[in-house]
Amino acid sequence: MNRKALISAIQDKKTMLCVGLDTDIKRIPQFIIDHYEDPIVEFNRRIIAATSDECVAYKFNIAFYESLGPKGWEALERSLDLIPDGIFTIADAKRGDIGNTSKLYARTFFETYDFDSITVSPYMGSDSLEPFYGYDDKWIIILGLTSNKGSQDVQMQQLKNGERVYQETIRRCAEYGDASNTMFVVGATKSEYIKEIRDIVPDHFFLMPGIGKQGGDLQSSLDNGMTDDYGLLINSSRGIIYADETESFDEGALAAAKTLNAAIRDHVSF
Amino acid sequence: MNRKALISAIQDKKTMLCVGLDTDIKRIPQFIIDHYEDPIVEFNRRIIAATSDECVAYKFNIAFYESLGPKGWEALERSLDLIPDGIFTIADAKRGDIGNTSKLYARTFFETYDFDSITVSPYMGSDSLEPFYGYDDKWIIILGLTSNKGSQDVQMQQLKNGERVYQETIRRCAEYGDASNTMFVVGATKSEYIKEIRDIVPDHFFLMPGIGKQGGDLQSSLDNGMTDDYGLLINSSRGIIYADETESFDEGALAAAKTLNAAIRDHVSF
Repeated sequence: MNRKALISAIQDKKTMLCVGLDTDIKRIPQFIIDHYEDPIVEFNRRIIAATSDECVAYKFNIAFYESLGPKGWEALERSLDLIPDGIFTIADAKRGDIGNTSKLYARTFFETYDFDSITVSPYMGSDSLEPFYGYDDKWIIILGLTSNKGSQDVQMQQLKNGERVYQETIRRCAEYGDASNTMFVVGATKSEYIKEIRDIVPDHFFLMPGIGKQGGDLQSSLDNGMTDDYGLLINSSRGIIYADETESFDEGALAAAKTLNAAIRDHVSF
Repeated sequence: MNRKALISAIQDKKTMLCVGLDTDIKRIPQFIIDHYEDPIVEFNRRIIAATSDECVAYKFNIAFYESLGPKGWEALERSLDLIPDGIFTIADAKRGDIGNTSKLYARTFFETYDFDSITVSPYMGSDSLEPFYGYDDKWIIILGLTSNKGSQDVQMQQLKNGERVYQETIRRCAEYGDASNTMFVVGATKSEYIKEIRDIVPDHFFLMPGIGKQGGDLQSSLDNGMTDDYGLLINSSRGIIYADETESFDEGALAAAKTLNAAIRDHVSF
């Protein structure tokens, strides 16, 4: 999906919501486990059916699928096939290796599976990211400043030039591609830093986790991160898919998505 | 496998060689593709049979298996089962995510698959690494200073305190575990930095890629990186498994392993 189509989808649906399908076999309602051959796919099918009008993107955290072995990868593929056209898809894989190997990761998520985008770690630098470029209408989403506590350990280190590691990283990585094929992960829990990151990359989209369970503040994230082209994908995973753990979990997910969208629409005019 | 057993294996086999099973379906000899249902497993079976007396570890770069979808993961499992007891196994996966998710990655590689160790990226900090600890006799191998050109982009950045990012990263990460459960990836292409990393972590094992195809120098890597407990796993992937691309590729791999071991033994007394 290209940038124009993504922006149109946001405008049409009046939301930048991304639903995270972090589907954990240990948290799926028992009746799904008991009655369906592939509970992960059935859970995702119901969540997607309930929420696809309320979001512009789905993010699959690959760890949840990978942990189940080959069956998990089959469930990932079948779930991806259930996403309606016109919705942006993210392989939240946080990969990155030497060029020779990153090529294979690109092949996995852009060819074997047809994701629109993949998240990658920048620690190994430019040649580890390069193989993800050069696919038409595919995106690389680079970890910038993440939402977790451990972001202090490497990302927040202060450099000799006065910047912090995440700032220098974002500045450099912005040069490898452009705002039509590159996004950055910027945690909503770091609202005090979002404005300065926006100054470094005024046009790039941010994939923003951390609203909800992780405690990020929606209003300041929107105030500090938005651009004229919206510029944000606001992710919620557990806050939506596990909003209700009863048999009507899909209705609960829809209600949670609607609540978040109402809050977004309070602050944003589409 | 615990540290004592690893050191004993090195002493017994008189080598620190780790063979990298970066098995690329596009580089497997045609007769294997034509005659075997699972060419990846057959290729690995022959490489392992040929080289298992010459090495103390096998490293599987997960990208090569993952790129083939569920079949690739089945091939990974079947290949892992072919590794004889007493040989250390590495899932070269370079994973790392928020704690909730890293738990799943740990589950994947330490439970679903029974690897002795996994490589991880430190960019997301302590809570992204923590879930990999707490498994008996399992190891976490943290990217320190990698062998590729892009290591300059983040890892070599100079911090305000005078250190470089990789130095501070290694120093901090060494505190999360200890030399019995933590190793660092240190590229053999960076021989001028190995000595100073050894000063930061005098007892930790280094997993050292970059000898061979990537141009790393064996002698200076040994001189600068070795400890009284050896302290190194010297990895070679393409230089061994693709040493000979004919029907007798396994003999070629054995010859390449023997050549590298002879060079190691020239410099090390076991």
